[in-house]
Amino acid sequence: MTHNEKPPSTAYGVYSEVGRLRKVLVCAPGLAHRRLTPTNSDALLFDDVMWVENAQRDHAEFVDELRRRGVDVVELHDLLAETMAIPEARTWLLERKITPNEAGVGLVDDTRAYLETCEPRRLAEYLIGGLATSDLPDDFRPDYVALARESTGIREYLMPPLPNTLYTRDTTCWLYGGLTMNPLYWPARHHETLLMKAIYEFHPDFVGSTVWWGDPERDWGQATFEGGDIMPVGNGVVLMGMSERTSRQAITQVAAALFEHGAADHVVVAGMPKLRAAMHLDTVFTFADRDVVTLYPTIVDGVHAFSLRPSDKAPGLSVTDHGGRPFVDVVAEALGLPELRVIATGGDVYASERQQWDSGNNAVALEPGVVFTYDRNTQTNTLLRQAGIEVITITGAELGRGRGGGHCMTCPIIREPVPF
Amino acid sequence: MTHNEKPPSTAYGVYSEVGRLRKVLVCAPGLAHRRLTPTNSDALLFDDVMWVENAQRDHAEFVDELRRRGVDVVELHDLLAETMAIPEARTWLLERKITPNEAGVGLVDDTRAYLETCEPRRLAEYLIGGLATSDLPDDFRPDYVALARESTGIREYLMPPLPNTLYTRDTTCWLYGGLTMNPLYWPARHHETLLMKAIYEFHPDFVGSTVWWGDPERDWGQATFEGGDIMPVGNGVVLMGMSERTSRQAITQVAAALFEHGAADHVVVAGMPKLRAAMHLDTVFTFADRDVVTLYPTIVDGVHAFSLRPSDKAPGLSVTDHGGRPFVDVVAEALGLPELRVIATGGDVYASERQQWDSGNNAVALEPGVVFTYDRNTQTNTLLRQAGIEVITITGAELGRGRGGGHCMTCPIIREPVPF
Amino acid sequence: MTHNEKPPSTAYGVYSEVGRLRKVLVCAPGLAHRRLTPTNSDALLFDDVMWVENAQRDHAEFVDELRRRGVDVVELHDLLAETMAIPEARTWLLERKITPNEAGVGLVDDTRAYLETCEPRRLAEYLIGGLATSDLPDDFRPDYVALARESTGIREYLMPPLPNTLYTRDTTCWLYGGLTMNPLYWPARHHETLLMKAIYEFHPDFVGSTVWWGDPERDWGQATFEGGDIMPVGNGVVLMGMSERTSRQAITQVAAALFEHGAADHVVVAGMPKLRAAMHLDTVFTFADRDVVTLYPTIVDGVHAFSLRPSDKAPGLSVTDHGGRPFVDVVAEALGLPELRVIATGGDVYASERQQWDSGNNAVALEPGVVFTYDRNTQTNTLLRQAGIEVITITGAELGRGRGGGHCMTCPIIREPVPF
Amino acid sequence: MTHNEKPPSTAYGVYSEVGRLRKVLVCAPGLAHRRLTPTNSDALLFDDVMWVENAQRDHAEFVDELRRRGVDVVELHDLLAETMAIPEARTWLLERKITPNEAGVGLVDDTRAYLETCEPRRLAEYLIGGLATSDLPDDFRPDYVALARESTGIREYLMPPLPNTLYTRDTTCWLYGGLTMNPLYWPARHHETLLMKAIYEFHPDFVGSTVWWGDPERDWGQATFEGGDIMPVGNGVVLMGMSERTSRQAITQVAAALFEHGAADHVVVAGMPKLRAAMHLDTVFTFADRDVVTLYPTIVDGVHAFSLRPSDKAPGLSVTDHGGRPFVDVVAEALGLPELRVIATGGDVYASERQQWDSGNNAVALEPGVVFTYDRNTQTNTLLRQAGIEVITITGAELGRGRGGGHCMTCPIIREPVPF
Repeated sequence: MTHNEKPPSTAYGVYSEVGRLRKVLVCAPGLAHRRLTPTNSDALLFDDVMWVENAQRDHAEFVDELRRRGVDVVELHDLLAETMAIPEARTWLLERKITPNEAGVGLVDDTRAYLETCEPRRLAEYLIGGLATSDLPDDFRPDYVALARESTGIREYLMPPLPNTLYTRDTTCWLYGGLTMNPLYWPARHHETLLMKAIYEFHPDFVGSTVWWGDPERDWGQATFEGGDIMPVGNGVVLMGMSERTSRQAITQVAAALFEHGAADHVVVAGMPKLRAAMHLDTVFTFADRDVVTLYPTIVDGVHAFSLRPSDKAPGLSVTDHGGRPFVDVVAEALGLPELRVIATGGDVYASERQQWDSGNNAVALEPGVVFTYDRNTQTNTLLRQAGIEVITITGAELGRGRGGGHCMTCPIIREPVPF
Repeated sequence: MTHNEKPPSTAYGVYSEVGRLRKVLVCAPGLAHRRLTPTNSDALLFDDVMWVENAQRDHAEFVDELRRRGVDVVELHDLLAETMAIPEARTWLLERKITPNEAGVGLVDDTRAYLETCEPRRLAEYLIGGLATSDLPDDFRPDYVALARESTGIREYLMPPLPNTLYTRDTTCWLYGGLTMNPLYWPARHHETLLMKAIYEFHPDFVGSTVWWGDPERDWGQATFEGGDIMPVGNGVVLMGMSERTSRQAITQVAAALFEHGAADHVVVAGMPKLRAAMHLDTVFTFADRDVVTLYPTIVDGVHAFSLRPSDKAPGLSVTDHGGRPFVDVVAEALGLPELRVIATGGDVYASERQQWDSGNNAVALEPGVVFTYDRNTQTNTLLRQAGIEVITITGAELGRGRGGGHCMTCPIIREPVPF
Repeated sequence: MTHNEKPPSTAYGVYSEVGRLRKVLVCAPGLAHRRLTPTNSDALLFDDVMWVENAQRDHAEFVDELRRRGVDVVELHDLLAETMAIPEARTWLLERKITPNEAGVGLVDDTRAYLETCEPRRLAEYLIGGLATSDLPDDFRPDYVALARESTGIREYLMPPLPNTLYTRDTTCWLYGGLTMNPLYWPARHHETLLMKAIYEFHPDFVGSTVWWGDPERDWGQATFEGGDIMPVGNGVVLMGMSERTSRQAITQVAAALFEHGAADHVVVAGMPKLRAAMHLDTVFTFADRDVVTLYPTIVDGVHAFSLRPSDKAPGLSVTDHGGRPFVDVVAEALGLPELRVIATGGDVYASERQQWDSGNNAVALEPGVVFTYDRNTQTNTLLRQAGIEVITITGAELGRGRGGGHCMTCPIIREPVPF
Repeated sequence: MTHNEKPPSTAYGVYSEVGRLRKVLVCAPGLAHRRLTPTNSDALLFDDVMWVENAQRDHAEFVDELRRRGVDVVELHDLLAETMAIPEARTWLLERKITPNEAGVGLVDDTRAYLETCEPRRLAEYLIGGLATSDLPDDFRPDYVALARESTGIREYLMPPLPNTLYTRDTTCWLYGGLTMNPLYWPARHHETLLMKAIYEFHPDFVGSTVWWGDPERDWGQATFEGGDIMPVGNGVVLMGMSERTSRQAITQVAAALFEHGAADHVVVAGMPKLRAAMHLDTVFTFADRDVVTLYPTIVDGVHAFSLRPSDKAPGLSVTDHGGRPFVDVVAEALGLPELRVIATGGDVYASERQQWDSGNNAVALEPGVVFTYDRNTQTNTLLRQAGIEVITITGAELGRGRGGGHCMTCPIIREPVPF
């Protein structure tokens, strides 16, 4: 199958950033966000606390609109509950979660025993939302519980809360016909990938998927990789932001794996400016149509582009340094386009900085020319509409407080190619 | 007039925290908040940027409800525009704002000339929202403009943006029949009090008000004072939080002035716990009824109480150290109550910390037993309602991002006493 | 062998905190500290940069004095160079260090090839000091080097600098007759333990040592353990600070391992106050004599003590919560002493806080009643001397900038018991 | 007198950056630095605490060497003690220091009474070192002392400690034949200038000095000015760094004052790069000889240069924007030199960043070609020596912890011109 060929509708795979979205993974806000407080939010990588009920309502509206537009939306709590209903899956995952290293010596047996009494749905909620020592019923509280003293810190959980599951984009990436199981940068997020592995190993809808790279049961050292930096734009090209969170060590491994399987033949690396190292590529650059991008010039103008291509010589890839050449031009050429139409963040110097912060450039496409963005970035949304893009808004008052938008909150599982 | 006597309806004065609110000063979000960006928000003392249009809508709903309930609401942009329509007032204020020290040598004349062309309403917007060098039309841009290079920093404004005017509570305080013009802690807020002085000196509705203490044209050194720490609870008592922002140097001066004029005879000082020095008293403790308070125990339990009372000897006040006695008990006794009914922040350890953060204890009373709070603090609101308090909610999605609630956003000008 | 029995002089083991020190591991400042800059020092866990030449001189004086007093001092660069002279050891370590996850795909072969050209001493320097891409000679620089752009960040090293090796105390702990290979809290320190494993696996002086717990080739999750929190005080007792860096998950595992081997029969856990969670126990509490401790009361008064003891039931240990009982009393009782003599940090409120910061309580004993401390903490040193302790000073102007003193910089390998 | 004419030896004035230094003001470390702790050092603008005894020794050695080389060195404690021996001066200063706004109502009389009992030397120590409430003897402790609770915070002092007096460079500047009394950026430093005014108003050696600009008894708003940014290089030129601390509002006022008095005819403004706004010009750029500068290219390459020159039109100065022209070239031209010889910070990327941090470029000249620098910046010192500069070293282990070097620690009072 060539890169642009349409996949069979039942096969999983993501062949572009803007082709018809057919199946997508999301994760609703929940228990993990109820655990967020001003004291622990830094450790859990959130800027602010959110009103969980309203965040749930706004997320549900987003999902409803996706479904109304024909997308098959699967939700992480649901998938995990279905997976936990399978005895071997439950055993597999609890053996990896409830260990002396995590729950603590002396708490393993009781914690495990309590979780075995839980219905799959409840268990899934604890797996994502965290299991605090205060959640253990009296029958399951040995003396060792006394040592766990910090009620709102992460360290004292028996299973840690994983509020960043909201951003399903980061944890796994479908890149053409296979996926990566990503080693995430922050230790506080490592268990997210383990949950995804349980689903891909045991859930009947996902068993047998092709994995290009990554395994949460291994230590990846400096090779960290987050989906917010990764875009399979089509034409055999993958864009990869090289940032604080996505390292050259990982990028080159994934590129080599993709090239080896013939899944891609060109990785364009976006070396993010050093001073803003923490940013994912998709916080400053996303696609709205086949040849239309929305971007934040203040950052994207500082991107240093490289190309990785297959090579006969070990380790199977060559590096081209594009020097001072604009990233947007390198991407256009890689896609065989004369140029990309660029819609910059809207408004004056204040407004554009505010809108970038509020995920104004973090659009996710439903199909070519149709995107979801937050309602609050009115000026950028207007510019997109003036450019002929249909913009569907998501209420961002609560969801946006974690600094991620529609692109971050979606992990496409089936997306069609677009012709180049 | 004794402390509990009802004032004539036309006279200004605040005689309690929960008596009928008759007149109040607020300030709508606006240009100053459009200037807020992630880069400058720290310098401007905001935690996050807000969606200004929605914040304006939510603030207008709050004002409408106040008016519907019979409160005379005056708004700072309006008052300032009315004041700037008075030529002497305009001259007085611009002479103090457009100086070599603020606008810069070489920019004074052109800036002043431009502002003289502005309608009062536009001028009021610049006074509150800030005048950036980029706001100067071409005819008013001398070469000196080149030196002002930092487009989103405060330093390079010709007049600084004052987004904290949203919190009218802090800038001036009516304490019984007179007011204080407060020297605020952060230099970024000093000009707020100057705007208020212009209104009190020139606006026909405010001329002749009694000022107990404070003058923005003087330097107050360590004597800083912010209304969020100050509560004229009635019975001749004033509560004053002694915090990072409200110092003993100011508290003792204000107490001495109140005692000297017979305006109060007891100041209860709430020495805030040192580790949370930045918090105003009203972020953790407010009144909901004559004998009902809502408070955040984690902080209030650590308050160290003192009493200041009039003394014949210079400087006119004596200090009593209440040692380990609970603040709530000291307040109850000062009011002649057997006890205060306490409604703590609702929910478990996570929820109560989240709700305190979201201004859950920052209630403002319309009359005894009727308060405004943010909608998002559902658990604390439920507890208040279960205690018989009528709770009217303010939409807090945007307004709450500056970390202030209904109490912070209101400066009562006329509030009736309650009997003790 | 009972706990108090003197070991054969050739056997390794640490039987007290103050018994005669016979053999100790230190690590001299060097290349890793030359890599420290204001920009990267946070990531490398240092507060400040140091003048490396002077730090080396001061460290050498400390080592000379130890040797002059009869201690066998071994140094990490030396041990590692000797180990790297053993071909299998070199292969073992480089296979674990120079991997696609660390050096990066495409740089493994050239980096490995270059290191194979290095003398053992040079190799040891790179292993501890880090290998920057700029260190690769031209013959060993493939195109992939272009992707590594951040010259002073950690991420772009081929092998990371390990400046915290200066604190040999943390990485491995001899507890009576065996040792632990510690999983350190910060990822930036994980490779330190790998270097130690190479030495213990291959160096002829260390092969065959008993390891109670720990293995740097495994992932220990929340079970982190740092020697600065650990003190084998004798009488079968081990003190363990439970801090941000040393978790209950690790403490209970190590206690169970010690109990299982009969190496100890009582672990006293010092639950550090939550607000100062980052502090090791030895930054606020060390022994100066059999029954004399120096401590910083501001912190130690807030310690919450627990006892772990062997149990017949799985997992082999029981927990006793000492509630509000003073830590010092619990320790005295565990040692069978009527009381501990306490020497608090000297000086007024300013001086004691300054001296704690400057490692004033971080003494390391040569023998009972003889300790090393930094010269700068003159007031605490005077108090120790007045109590009859011989104090030998270390020049701390540079060494102290990493916030560790004599106790942190030494890993005892042979220390005799003291009678209890 | 023209700019290059030699002044009479008894007249004060600074006519260059490298001409013979004849008289200089310094301030020895002392009580203020004993008050510095890890908790309050941020508020007092210090990065770290210092060993005061050693800092005093190293400072004394610096002073001795200056004197040995023929410089008349005056010390701030000495000058202030001499000034406080003059009754009117004592009254003048204490009336401005011991006020209700600073000491607090109720503490003024006792504090004042206690200070009147102090010898001038002791009083000078308190004025610089701060007067804590705990310093008040029992006879001078009214009940009001109870309100002052925070023993190591700045707010609770009766007079604040002023540890930054160590950097006499910042507080006043002799620019040719007159001086400026600088409004410093941080409120924590404002009282430094008041002490200097007492000396210039009352000390017989300083009475009658010409003051170009500045008065600590006035509020200067945004017009802040610090000597570390200011260099009277000769030839009628003054360099002024425009930084976070030295604003265009102040620079233009001082320039206008200098032009008006004919004291200078060209101010070269060094607009510091925005991302490093906090840096003084002299932390990255100083003169070592008539035509030799030492600088840190990473920052200086980003400086944006402007020229201010006298103008007939109000407000008496014109602005020239030099656009992208290198600052060093603009300075050379202003001095009439064909070029400046540049000695960059020494060493590789790590070493140069480290040495800039350690004040490596903060040289102060004794005479043309003879400078003082810290000993620790060995690589930059070597480069200076190789260029023919005589380098005299200051021990920087303790003094350097406040992030200032020899240039910062000296305020020249008489320095001869050099020919241009």
